[in-house]
Order: sequence, then C-alpha cells, then structure tokens
Amino acid sequence: MTRRETLGGEQVEGRRAVRELLRARVRTVRSVQVSRRAEPDETLDEIVALAGPLLRRVAPEALRATARSDAHQGVVATAEPLRAADLDDLLGDPDAFLVALDGVTDPQNVGAVLRTAETAGASGFVLPRHRSALVTPVVAKAAAGAIEYVPIALVSGIPAALERAARAGVWAVGLDERGERSLFDLTLAEQPIMVVFGAEGRGLARLTRKRCDVLVHIPVRGQIASLNVAAAAAVTCHELARRRNSIDRPPPG
Amino acid sequence: MTRRETLGGEQVEGRRAVRELLRARVRTVRSVQVSRRAEPDETLDEIVALAGPLLRRVAPEALRATARSDAHQGVVATAEPLRAADLDDLLGDPDAFLVALDGVTDPQNVGAVLRTAETAGASGFVLPRHRSALVTPVVAKAAAGAIEYVPIALVSGIPAALERAARAGVWAVGLDERGERSLFDLTLAEQPIMVVFGAEGRGLARLTRKRCDVLVHIPVRGQIASLNVAAAAAVTCHELARRRNSIDRPPPG
Repeated sequence: MTRRETLGGEQVEGRRAVRELLRARVRTVRSVQVSRRAEPDETLDEIVALAGPLLRRVAPEALRATARSDAHQGVVATAEPLRAADLDDLLGDPDAFLVALDGVTDPQNVGAVLRTAETAGASGFVLPRHRSALVTPVVAKAAAGAIEYVPIALVSGIPAALERAARAGVWAVGLDERGERSLFDLTLAEQPIMVVFGAEGRGLARLTRKRCDVLVHIPVRGQIASLNVAAAAAVTCHELARRRNSIDRPPPG
Repeated sequence: MTRRETLGGEQVEGRRAVRELLRARVRTVRSVQVSRRAEPDETLDEIVALAGPLLRRVAPEALRATARSDAHQGVVATAEPLRAADLDDLLGDPDAFLVALDGVTDPQNVGAVLRTAETAGASGFVLPRHRSALVTPVVAKAAAGAIEYVPIALVSGIPAALERAARAGVWAVGLDERGERSLFDLTLAEQPIMVVFGAEGRGLARLTRKRCDVLVHIPVRGQIASLNVAAAAAVTCHELARRRNSIDRPPPG
C-alpha cells in the first residue's frame, strides 16, 4: 500500500551523506556537484572516485545557490527520491528494532536520530506522514547517510502504528521523562521492539503513551531535567544495542 | 591561577538556558528581555516570575536584533560572565567525572555535549583556551543551562591537562573509533575519571591519544562508521553514569 510512496531525499548535501548515497547504490544518482574551492579530504576523494562521470565541478556561488542546508561542505548531489517501506514488512522481521518519532519536527533532530539509530543497528524507522517533504536536505545532511541504509515506513499516526505493532507481536517502548521504569532496567530489550521518541518539551502524545507496553526514562543525575531528543535517542538506541548484542545481525534493507 | 579567567556566557538565549540561569542564581543577572509576541508556555511563565523587576517586554524586531543565535525562542538575558574553575580543584574531587573536549569547535556540538554531560552527573568540564569567547550565545543556548551548574576549567591544551590528571590519580579515557576496548567493557568507569572527546572526523589529537590510559570505542552495528560527537558523548556519559550509579552524589559546584 505505502510501498511506492516517496519520502523526499532527492537532494543530498554534505560529505558523509553524499558519500553514503554513492556507496549504498540503492537509488539512482543523477548528479554530484562539488565546489571548485572544496577543501580536500579523504571523504571528498572517495566522493570524486565514486561519482565518476556524474561529477561536476562548480563555482562556490553556484553551489551555494543550489544548496538548501547551511552546511553542505562543498558537495550537493541529486538522486531519485527515497521510497517508503511497508510497515508490515518491518514489523515482520523477527529481529525488528524499529525507531518511531512522534511529533519531532525539527529537521536537525530528525536527521540526528536517524543517524544514531542506524549506528545502533535499527532495522527500520517509522515516521508520521503529516508533511509533504519528509526527508529534506537538512534531514538528509544530519542523517549522514542513514536514509540510504535503513528503510523508512510512513504512517498516518504513531498510535495506529503501535496497534499494528501489537498485532505483529512487536513490543512498544516509549521514552518518557515520567516513565515508570529506568531504561537500564528494561526487560524487553532483546525482543522485537518499536521504541518511540517524542518532541522535546511536549513529550509523547497522550494516545501514544497509552498504546506503549512500557514507558521508560533515562535516569538524570544533574540539575537539568531532560535530554534533548537526539541525545536521548543516542543513549536509548545504544543501550538497546548493547542488550540485544546484535553484532551478528545482517545489515538491514 | 585560572580561577578568575572569564569564559563568556554574558548573553544567554533560549527558554531553557535562561530559566536555568535564573534558577541557579550563581551569577548576577543584568536583564531579561522577552518578546511581546513570545508564545506562552510553562517555561516562559517561570522565567517571567523569576525575572521580577529585571524583565523587559520588547518588540520582536528588537529582540531579533539583539539575539546572536537563531533560536532564541523569544527570550534573551544578559548576566555577568562565567568564571573559569581551577583544574586542580576539579581533579581533587574524589568522585571526579570530568568531560574534556579536544578540538571540538562547532558551538552547537560543544553546547550539546555540555548539556548531556550535565544530565549524566559530570562534575566538571575541561576546555582548551584557544578562543576568546568560549561560551558564545549558541553554546549557551545548546547547553540549556548546563553552564550554570557544572564548573568549566580552561587549559592551554588537553595533553597537559591529562598529565595533571595522571598526577592527581584521575584516569584518562579517550573515545576513539579505533579504541582497543568497547566502552561497555571499560573497567575504570567507577574511578575518578576524565573522559575526552575529539572532533568528528579528525578524532583525538595524537598526543591526546598517547596520554590517555585507555581508548574506548562505541560498538557500531550499522553501515555508518561513526556517531557525531554529541551523540557519542551522550552514549558515553550515560553509560559511565549507569556504571558509577551516582544517584547519591551531591550536586556539583
């Protein structure tokens, strides 16, 4: 149903993001523009080698006019759009380790969560379909390539996705400042799991909280009450990875 | 020696950062400006209550002209500058849990690391003194108040600070993609410790690596080789906090 829905992601900026686009080879790349004054480094060398005939050296001003993030690092690529994955396919994975975002709209945070979750071995992402361009250039840049490797399912709302997860035998874990249990005491960590992060401040929506099997918090030991969502996702996903000990899992996608 | 050196931090923007400035009461606040069109929320209510006679309602354009970060959220305060802490004082704490940054220059990342380390119970920060204004408005905003609670020592270089740490019996742990040991197998976690994070890409400087007692890596289970420094610091500091089980430590500062 949602299989062929597009997610955006046609414009990819920043060196890591473009390198992974070229390495992953999961979608057709249309162009790779590199500023004539881009400072050389290993990543740029690899981009140039992988881009082959797609490479165009352009004036810095031309690149600046094309770029839509403020940190393109002298590299902008275009590619066919990302296609959404089917949620039921993601839920059917016996090793499911899904990351859902509930009301997180800041593109830097969305991208940062995708990146960190990928490094922790997440098998899929679940995003609500309430905006037209989900994977904007800023999201793609901050994700540093994660969008090429981890399938993303679009859903009409996170509560509905949690209902489908329950039917598929996937446990729903919500991160919540007021959650009854410490993340570090979670007993479901090794099971098929969907972990849900809410927006900073507001937290998880009421219905999302209600549909989670367990709400966990990160113990806070200072004066500031809460972590930002990207930091909270980093702590949570890598704690789950440690517990799942998933080094031998085949790469997702 | 470095005790009275100033760190910047005179201008504080963003709701969480300003609220913590007012709550902490560790330095004199000079003014609190709130945009006349600032959207009300609980944090703003608390700022207004705490600011008392210091509060000035200003036009949105006036605030925009004053603000130096791009996410002031309608609130800008000024205060006396932060004063640097003495490194030897920080090293003398029997529960020392210090976080040092080696070559991390992006102010968003610096601020994000300070914020997350504070939530993990860090007892102090160690920053190299190579720029005039260390705690810029962008750092203060991203730190979300951590600068009010955790003392910051300035050093001429991280390798020299590690030498002083060794003399004080504080273990130096460097986070390094190529580190020989997993963060999760670190045996020193419960000891007095200084953990060092390097810039993304370049990593730790050679001399810093050499002076660390142990180099640890975060196991990566996806296709992307590395985490960004803010995410890596979140995972590391909260893993150390879990191991140190430091719930009963008195608040620092």
